[in-house]
Amino acid sequence: MTPDHTLPENLISRRARRAGDQAVGFLMQQAVENRDCLSLAAGLVDEDSLPVEETRSALSALLSDEERARQVLQYGTTAGADGLRNSLIGHLARLEGCSRDELGIETDQIIMTTGSQQLIACVADVLLDPGDICLVAAPTYFVFLSVLDGVGARSVAVKTDNHGMCPDALHAELHRLDDAGESGRVKLIYVVSYYENPSGVSLAADRRARIVEIARHWSRSHRIHILEDVAYRELRYDGPDLPSVWSFDTSRESVILAQTFSKSFSPGVRVGFGVVPRALIAPICNRKSNEDFGSANLNQHLIDTVLNKGLYEPHVASVRASYRSKRDAMLDAADRYFSDADGVGWIRPDGGLYVWMHVPESISTGFDSELFHRATRVEKVMYVPGELCYPGPIDKRPRNFMRLSFGVQSPDGIDAGMQRLAAAVRSVL
Amino acid sequence: MTPDHTLPENLISRRARRAGDQAVGFLMQQAVENRDCLSLAAGLVDEDSLPVEETRSALSALLSDEERARQVLQYGTTAGADGLRNSLIGHLARLEGCSRDELGIETDQIIMTTGSQQLIACVADVLLDPGDICLVAAPTYFVFLSVLDGVGARSVAVKTDNHGMCPDALHAELHRLDDAGESGRVKLIYVVSYYENPSGVSLAADRRARIVEIARHWSRSHRIHILEDVAYRELRYDGPDLPSVWSFDTSRESVILAQTFSKSFSPGVRVGFGVVPRALIAPICNRKSNEDFGSANLNQHLIDTVLNKGLYEPHVASVRASYRSKRDAMLDAADRYFSDADGVGWIRPDGGLYVWMHVPESISTGFDSELFHRATRVEKVMYVPGELCYPGPIDKRPRNFMRLSFGVQSPDGIDAGMQRLAAAVRSVL
Repeated sequence: MTPDHTLPENLISRRARRAGDQAVGFLMQQAVENRDCLSLAAGLVDEDSLPVEETRSALSALLSDEERARQVLQYGTTAGADGLRNSLIGHLARLEGCSRDELGIETDQIIMTTGSQQLIACVADVLLDPGDICLVAAPTYFVFLSVLDGVGARSVAVKTDNHGMCPDALHAELHRLDDAGESGRVKLIYVVSYYENPSGVSLAADRRARIVEIARHWSRSHRIHILEDVAYRELRYDGPDLPSVWSFDTSRESVILAQTFSKSFSPGVRVGFGVVPRALIAPICNRKSNEDFGSANLNQHLIDTVLNKGLYEPHVASVRASYRSKRDAMLDAADRYFSDADGVGWIRPDGGLYVWMHVPESISTGFDSELFHRATRVEKVMYVPGELCYPGPIDKRPRNFMRLSFGVQSPDGIDAGMQRLAAAVRSVL
Repeated sequence: MTPDHTLPENLISRRARRAGDQAVGFLMQQAVENRDCLSLAAGLVDEDSLPVEETRSALSALLSDEERARQVLQYGTTAGADGLRNSLIGHLARLEGCSRDELGIETDQIIMTTGSQQLIACVADVLLDPGDICLVAAPTYFVFLSVLDGVGARSVAVKTDNHGMCPDALHAELHRLDDAGESGRVKLIYVVSYYENPSGVSLAADRRARIVEIARHWSRSHRIHILEDVAYRELRYDGPDLPSVWSFDTSRESVILAQTFSKSFSPGVRVGFGVVPRALIAPICNRKSNEDFGSANLNQHLIDTVLNKGLYEPHVASVRASYRSKRDAMLDAADRYFSDADGVGWIRPDGGLYVWMHVPESISTGFDSELFHRATRVEKVMYVPGELCYPGPIDKRPRNFMRLSFGVQSPDGIDAGMQRLAAAVRSVL
C-alpha cells in the first residue's frame, strides 16, 4: 500500500520492509486526495477545546524563573524529568482512587516518552523477537498492529465482544498455542482497556483481574506481559469508573501501563509515559537511550506545571463535556439516519472518540470497496475501514465495519457527515 | 555493564539484549556515584548561554495568535511541520553558502525528529539488518556505536587521522570486504564531519568529495549510503567554513544529512532533522510513524518562530563566543598542566565541545583503570574513557585516550578540572 514495494529488495532492512505494510500512510494519502471530504476518519482531537490559555499560563510561569528556564532548555535524562514522574504518581493514585503509598510504585518505574505511542513501540521492540506472538483483541488499535508487523511479531486475535477481550477465549487460545508447541513464542497480551480504538468498548470489570491471572498462569518458561493501553481513560462520559488492569497486578511484574496526555490535554506536546515492571526499566531505557536519549524536557516540565498549578483537572472536565456532546451528536445522528437501514448497527461507547459501526456482512467497507468510493467520491465523507483494525491476512478479516470518529468535527459537522454516510450506505445496500 | 545481563535470557528480545551492551548507562551511573566530581565527561551544553529570552519571546508570539496556538497544540504530521521544513531549506542554503534553488531539495526530503539522535537511530534501523556492516571513523560518536550494536550491525573501523577518516583506508577496507565476500553486507558509512565527538577533528575538505565517490564506486549490488552527522557544524571557532559531505552528493541519493538544534540552540526542545534521499523518505517516515507518529509539534513551531523572527543567528554567535573562550581555557590549561608530562598529547579542535587527549600507551584510561579510579575517587574529576568511542572487542581497542568536554564547566571549572586531571595522570605515569 506504500511506495516501499517499488524499492529494490536490498535497499532497506527487513524490518523497514515489514514496517512499510502499514495502513496509516495510505489513510493519510486518502485524506490528502480527498480534502473536500468531511472527515469522520481523522484521529485528531477537538480543536476548540485545546488548552491554549493553560499552556500560555504554564509556560509563562515556567520560563519566568530564570534558573528553571535554563533547566528545561538543557538536556533531561533518558527516563524523564524527576519532578513530573513524581507528580504522575499522584496523578495515577487519583485515577485509581487510592493513596500514593497504596499505588506501590516508585518514580524510577515511570518512563516518559513521546506520546504513549513511543512507549508501546519500545515495549514491542524490547519484548518481541521476529516470530514471537502478541495476543490482541479483535478489533484493536491498528497502529499497534503495524508496530507488531514492524518487529516481525505475529498478532493473534482473541475473540472480543461488547465487553472487550473474552478471558475464556484468551485462555483457550493460549491452550491451543501450547498444544501447538508455540507457547514459548507468546510474549505479550495487548489490551486497550478503556473505550478501545476503534470499537469504543471497555474491558468489563470482572475480566480485568481474570486476564492478569491468565497471563500469570501461562507464564511458565518466561513471563507473559500485559501491555495495557489507557490512552482514552480520562475521556469517560457515562458508565462506571473502572480500576485499571494494572491495578490487579499486585506483583507489579506483569502489566505495563501506557498512558498519554495527548487526548486529555494536547497531542502537540507529545507527552506520554509508561509504568513498567522493575525488570523492564533498564531494557526500555536502553532502547530509548539509543533512540533519542529522552523526550523533550521542555514539554515534560510544561505538563508538570499544568498538573501542579491545578490547571489540569478543570481542563479535562471541559474536554469531557465537549466530547460527550459530540458523542451524543453522533449517536443521535446514527439513530436518525441509520435506524431504518437493515443490517446496520453500532456500539454506544461510554467514552473515547469512536463509534464502531457495521453494515451487512455482504458489504465491504475497504479502500477498494464500492462503499468507500461512494462515500469519499460522491457523498464526500471519509471513515476508517474496519478491516485495518484486525490482524491477519486481509481476506480473512471482517470487512463490514467502519470506525467513525467524533473527535474533530463539530456537532453540526458530525450530523452532516453521518447524513452523507447514510446516503452512501443506502446506495450500496 | 548494565543490569540487563542479570535478566533471564528469554525475558527480553535479542535486540534489547544487544542494546544493553552500551556505555551510556554505566557512564551516567558513574556520574551519579561521583556527584562531588568536577565533570569533564558530561555531554551537556553550556547552561549560561541557553536561549531563555529567545524562547520566551518566540513562545509568546506563537501562543498569542489563537489560531496558531491551536494548530501547535494539535497533532502534527509524522514528517514534521511544513513551515519549519520550508524554513530549514533556507537555513541549509545559508550554511552551504548557496541559494535555495542551488540546494536542489524539496521540503518532503526533510524529516523532523526528536534530536538528530532519533534520525540516526531511524537510519540504522531502516538500512541495517543484523550482520550488516557500517564503516565508521575510529574514534567516533559512541552512542551511534551503541545504536549499531542495537540493530545487530557490525561496526568496522576505518583508519582515521587528524583530518578525519582516511579515504584510502576506506577504499582499502571496502576492497578487503569485497575480497572476503562481504561487500553485500556493507550498507552504510557513518561520518561526523565537523569537530567530531570525541576527537574534535573535522574531515578535510579534499576528503569530502572522495568519500562520496568511494561510496558510489562500491555501490554495486545495492547503494551504500553515507550518514553525515553535522551536530557540531555551527560550533566553529577557527578554521575554514567547510561545505558538507552532503553537498558533494549532487545526485542527492547517497548522503543522508543529520542535523540538530540541540547544540546551537537548546537540547531541551529536542528538535533535530534529516535531509534524506528520495528513496528513503517513505521507509524513514514509516519507521517514525510506528515509533511516535511525529515529534512534538509545539517544539517545531517554536524553532520555526525563532528562525523567522531573526532570533537564531545572534544567539548562535553568542553561543560560539562562549564556547570559543571555554575551548581556549581548556587548551591553555592543558598547556599549563600537561606540557611537561611525557607521552601526553591532545588535539586542538577548531570547534565542537571536546578535547581528545592521549596518555602513554602503557596507561589505560578505562572504567576499571587505576587512572579512572584515581581521577574520580581521589582528585575528583571525571572524563569519558576513550575506549568507549571505538568499535570492536574491548581488548583490541586503544585504551589510552580520554574525551574531555568544555561544554558544561565555566572557564574556572575547566582550569580546576584540568589541574586535577593532571595530578591524577602524574600519579600513574
